[in-house]
Amino acid sequence: MSHNTFGHLFRVTTWGESHGPAIGCVVDGCPPGIPLTEADLQPWLDRRKPGGSRFVTQRKESDTARILSGTYDDGAGPVTTGTPISILIENEDARSKDYGEIARAFRPGHADVTYQAKYGVRDPRGGGRSSARETAVRVAAGAIARKVLGETVRIRAGVVQLGPHRMAPETVDLDAVYDNPLFAASADVVPQWEAYLDEVRKAGSSIGAVVALEATGVPAGWGAPLYGKLDAELAAALMSINAVKGVEIGAGFAAAELSGEDNADEMRLGEDGQPVFLSNHAGGVLGGISTGQPVTARVAFKPTSSILTPRRTITRDGEETDLRTRGRHDPCVALRGVPVVEAMAACVLADAMLRHRAQVG
Amino acid sequence: MSHNTFGHLFRVTTWGESHGPAIGCVVDGCPPGIPLTEADLQPWLDRRKPGGSRFVTQRKESDTARILSGTYDDGAGPVTTGTPISILIENEDARSKDYGEIARAFRPGHADVTYQAKYGVRDPRGGGRSSARETAVRVAAGAIARKVLGETVRIRAGVVQLGPHRMAPETVDLDAVYDNPLFAASADVVPQWEAYLDEVRKAGSSIGAVVALEATGVPAGWGAPLYGKLDAELAAALMSINAVKGVEIGAGFAAAELSGEDNADEMRLGEDGQPVFLSNHAGGVLGGISTGQPVTARVAFKPTSSILTPRRTITRDGEETDLRTRGRHDPCVALRGVPVVEAMAACVLADAMLRHRAQVG
Amino acid sequence: MSHNTFGHLFRVTTWGESHGPAIGCVVDGCPPGIPLTEADLQPWLDRRKPGGSRFVTQRKESDTARILSGTYDDGAGPVTTGTPISILIENEDARSKDYGEIARAFRPGHADVTYQAKYGVRDPRGGGRSSARETAVRVAAGAIARKVLGETVRIRAGVVQLGPHRMAPETVDLDAVYDNPLFAASADVVPQWEAYLDEVRKAGSSIGAVVALEATGVPAGWGAPLYGKLDAELAAALMSINAVKGVEIGAGFAAAELSGEDNADEMRLGEDGQPVFLSNHAGGVLGGISTGQPVTARVAFKPTSSILTPRRTITRDGEETDLRTRGRHDPCVALRGVPVVEAMAACVLADAMLRHRAQVG
Amino acid sequence: MSHNTFGHLFRVTTWGESHGPAIGCVVDGCPPGIPLTEADLQPWLDRRKPGGSRFVTQRKESDTARILSGTYDDGAGPVTTGTPISILIENEDARSKDYGEIARAFRPGHADVTYQAKYGVRDPRGGGRSSARETAVRVAAGAIARKVLGETVRIRAGVVQLGPHRMAPETVDLDAVYDNPLFAASADVVPQWEAYLDEVRKAGSSIGAVVALEATGVPAGWGAPLYGKLDAELAAALMSINAVKGVEIGAGFAAAELSGEDNADEMRLGEDGQPVFLSNHAGGVLGGISTGQPVTARVAFKPTSSILTPRRTITRDGEETDLRTRGRHDPCVALRGVPVVEAMAACVLADAMLRHRAQVG
Repeated sequence: MSHNTFGHLFRVTTWGESHGPAIGCVVDGCPPGIPLTEADLQPWLDRRKPGGSRFVTQRKESDTARILSGTYDDGAGPVTTGTPISILIENEDARSKDYGEIARAFRPGHADVTYQAKYGVRDPRGGGRSSARETAVRVAAGAIARKVLGETVRIRAGVVQLGPHRMAPETVDLDAVYDNPLFAASADVVPQWEAYLDEVRKAGSSIGAVVALEATGVPAGWGAPLYGKLDAELAAALMSINAVKGVEIGAGFAAAELSGEDNADEMRLGEDGQPVFLSNHAGGVLGGISTGQPVTARVAFKPTSSILTPRRTITRDGEETDLRTRGRHDPCVALRGVPVVEAMAACVLADAMLRHRAQVG
Repeated sequence: MSHNTFGHLFRVTTWGESHGPAIGCVVDGCPPGIPLTEADLQPWLDRRKPGGSRFVTQRKESDTARILSGTYDDGAGPVTTGTPISILIENEDARSKDYGEIARAFRPGHADVTYQAKYGVRDPRGGGRSSARETAVRVAAGAIARKVLGETVRIRAGVVQLGPHRMAPETVDLDAVYDNPLFAASADVVPQWEAYLDEVRKAGSSIGAVVALEATGVPAGWGAPLYGKLDAELAAALMSINAVKGVEIGAGFAAAELSGEDNADEMRLGEDGQPVFLSNHAGGVLGGISTGQPVTARVAFKPTSSILTPRRTITRDGEETDLRTRGRHDPCVALRGVPVVEAMAACVLADAMLRHRAQVG
Repeated sequence: MSHNTFGHLFRVTTWGESHGPAIGCVVDGCPPGIPLTEADLQPWLDRRKPGGSRFVTQRKESDTARILSGTYDDGAGPVTTGTPISILIENEDARSKDYGEIARAFRPGHADVTYQAKYGVRDPRGGGRSSARETAVRVAAGAIARKVLGETVRIRAGVVQLGPHRMAPETVDLDAVYDNPLFAASADVVPQWEAYLDEVRKAGSSIGAVVALEATGVPAGWGAPLYGKLDAELAAALMSINAVKGVEIGAGFAAAELSGEDNADEMRLGEDGQPVFLSNHAGGVLGGISTGQPVTARVAFKPTSSILTPRRTITRDGEETDLRTRGRHDPCVALRGVPVVEAMAACVLADAMLRHRAQVG
Repeated sequence: MSHNTFGHLFRVTTWGESHGPAIGCVVDGCPPGIPLTEADLQPWLDRRKPGGSRFVTQRKESDTARILSGTYDDGAGPVTTGTPISILIENEDARSKDYGEIARAFRPGHADVTYQAKYGVRDPRGGGRSSARETAVRVAAGAIARKVLGETVRIRAGVVQLGPHRMAPETVDLDAVYDNPLFAASADVVPQWEAYLDEVRKAGSSIGAVVALEATGVPAGWGAPLYGKLDAELAAALMSINAVKGVEIGAGFAAAELSGEDNADEMRLGEDGQPVFLSNHAGGVLGGISTGQPVTARVAFKPTSSILTPRRTITRDGEETDLRTRGRHDPCVALRGVPVVEAMAACVLADAMLRHRAQVG
């Protein structure tokens, strides 16, 4: 993780601002010979793209990804060549007029004030580089990572808590996520949550949420001590997503209340001679290395900072003011964060796979 | 973060096993001209070292750090020279006899099973590389990082929740931490917590805990979008500590329940023309860049996995067995984790300081 | 240096194939507030672009660079914002028909055989990723690096040896380079060299050359022991240019014949209290750190591998054949290598400047 | 390559000064299960260690390497565990009294003046960090790299030019190198060279040399475009060795005089279906990727800067003086550079092997 690049061997470098001509990424280190076309990216991008329901921003973006390099069609369809894959997504609906006022005033909860403090200059249009728009290219990179991982590894995420509304753990069904506009991990909660989020939306307010992540099919052995721990890499990748304020692996904060007896994931012998764990408080990671169990995490998103209620703030010229953030926004940024969480996990796992193969063969 | 190295410019590489001849680290990229002797490291190491109370492992280690390179005394006392600082701590009390059984059986909750799966070989003596003993050198590196940061930046941590016992937020006093054997962030809870932890200890059991972290004096502007975010780097560094299962920045998971209005850290103008934030849900970081407010985080530790109650497990030879982990252990590994949390934060901040200076001057 | 990224803090990631839709790069870590438009890049690109004389390939490319991110115009003209700068150059004249045969046969001296061996697949059109076309984006990145370095640091290169024709050292004038179509570092040799290279060109042959590099205005102190040595970084950057087979710093291979007495760059005291060196065998670098003298290097380019005389080779299907490389080529690839050598040096120096500032302030 | 660490996956971090208590390194990323004891390191260290003949420094060092971590003996002898291998070599004969004067005056040709300029402080004892003594740990790391590479890859180097005395290319025999005290790649030249170097030595002078390197058994496919080119990595690694001023791959600077016809390494089909190259001007690398031919390079060493003839210089206090460098020195530093060249090549190749395995499997 280094400024705008993440990953060690499966490396993703992203660029672009919300209201510039385009955003994009370069995926380096991808193994060769993997079938890959733009059609492989689009379904994942479509899940994240704006305008899909009344619960997400009404910005109009087709989020069409173009692959500009790194694949070649030798007759049997395009495959990766092992060289860098450049992906470009044009910004189609960049209404800069919406953002005139915030060039001057710092929106509370946004990065306006810190970008200004750090760089002495910032692109205020739509939040510039700090806009969640950048996450589109993460999703594109994640789609490539999934192809590297193959079909055995399955990565799913979904909203399990919307503001004060928590889902009963036993009802969580990550296959339900993309069948409802709330990306909720259970069909049961949808009516209640829709009503709740409609209220939030109509009030011009916003709310936070928690997203659960699960990766199954990860073999034992990925990750590495001590600073390349799979859970540490995952934590960094997830925390780098806009609006994320917390990451748990396995039992997470609940583990703080457990005794050693209860937290121990006991083992029996499976028919294949591999360990069978009787529980998964570890979230599939021990000592930073995967156990073969599902890798599980939970991610806390703060509420969207852009709201219609005026908030007290200051301007870059040193004046106090009240600011009401107009423009098009998501009432709950975590919703469209779900495919981003999946994508970041896919990238981290693809990287871990390659690193493991490097050291252990 | 790459296997056994962390940091970009202030880089720490650690090595060593629990029961090998020594553990150590190499700190590279340290600015020159900083006064540094072994006496600067020892107070911090003493806070983490075993044997200090009945609540921590009874292993006898003086944890005496030797500086083998990177400083020179030109008459006015040793200062850093800008070259790598090698630190070595001998293992004095490495009773391998305690660990015979676990060479064969995998201790539940430990990294035994994953190291074996990954590498096909492991050093079972005291957990080898995965032992919390390694954290001693992190503390030494953190002591150097503190000197790089200078006295303006103050980094403190303390236990704010011990198992089910939570401290009232308004009583938290991080200056109280090293005055009690529980590293508790409040003197008030100590009697009750001591009684509780004594029970846990006598039962041969263990318990998890939550550690709060606060760094004050961090100027606005440290950190960097998008994958070098200060909170992402912090999350990785903290998650890399043994037994950590969750990291929150600022309001953390509680932010998931907040509305945009409540979560907004409104701003007024300070006398010095700098922003004054009216709250700190952000934990001192917006868009991955420090705001100038205190950087705050919370870290969840799982209970020590080594307990006296037998747990079901398997052996590397493919047999099922029950294992009772003898040896010397901490009933709550989070306690000695407190100086480690501080050290990791210090290293991340020193690195962020140098990276900021590089780009912005 | 890691696959398709180079630099530590001033980091350049490049992508693109010779005959794909475009090539490009992402420049990360650039300091903010530097005035930058596409007009700043174009003059440098124009120096390298094809079609400028009969001595370079007749491919028609305008090499127009677009800046897609990382700058913002706040009224006083676009400046860098500290976020990644994405540069895109479209491939306009990609005649794939020229390259049908080489999809099958491996061109001797080219990377065809090794890309196939490594990846099992390659883009044969124009050499794909291994084409010298990629160097255009290095030049664009170098133009940004020059702006980071400012006007004090001046980086110039030129051809000092064309095949068997060596220039007398005392006639070298790096200001003459861009005034002649041979990029020769002396106007005196041009008539003779033109006649010589015309012969080479008409024979469908090619020839190697040596390029000299000089960077003046580099202050003492840049670079770092031991594996971040300025000369080691420079050597890697220059050796990464297509067709480069050798790099010398200062006296280079001639130093192997010198005595310690002759090689010593003696010092006297300058009026400003700084050292004045009486010679510069070191090439401006001692112990990997700049001395304040001009940083000098020499770079050997092999002849263009594409020639009209048939050469014995094999095909990917395991047959022997003779191959004559048609298409448009440079009779001496070193000529257009001159701006690339300068660009790589600029990037290395900008990176060294930022790294120095990070550690020493 | 980053300050005191080199390598991407097979990573070596070194530390230590000439006259400190010890020098050492940490080798990270080593594959597990490789038999390794201190006896595997010592033969290589013995080749480099001082005191072996009158042609090398008379400093008395046993250069005994201790392995402090990263191996475990599970009954069948110590093997690598995949965790970092820490190696420590004590400095036994550190006579600081020899170096009193140079604490004040800058030795011409040495890094004294640049370390002082960069850091404002330096350890002058024996050159501190910039001493060639550091190369001992490179040799230890190289010994581990050789074990990673296995017996198929054979890496040899030797002196092929001593000052003005060049060896006839057809007489080069790299198996002869360690049978003569000059590390000469031919027994034939030894009498003449010994007489020559004796004169140099008795005059208190020094001389440069050229070392040739050859690695056989490197399979096709190692290395990577474009900034991870095998030859670029090799160039950086070799240029990072003390006193090296030039690196050539294959034909090197001679390629500048070759025509495309002569430089082309034509191919025929081998019995195994692999390409057979009819020459090796490329030095075993095309497009940054190994061809399967021997990887060849040549390295130019400058003369030892420490000589008995007084040279003009300045002091850190801003005075002009004449300095005669006493102490124990090598009349030709390239001699003991031979095992260092081999070691650096071994490390680069081991890293390339792991990186190739990561991406391509």
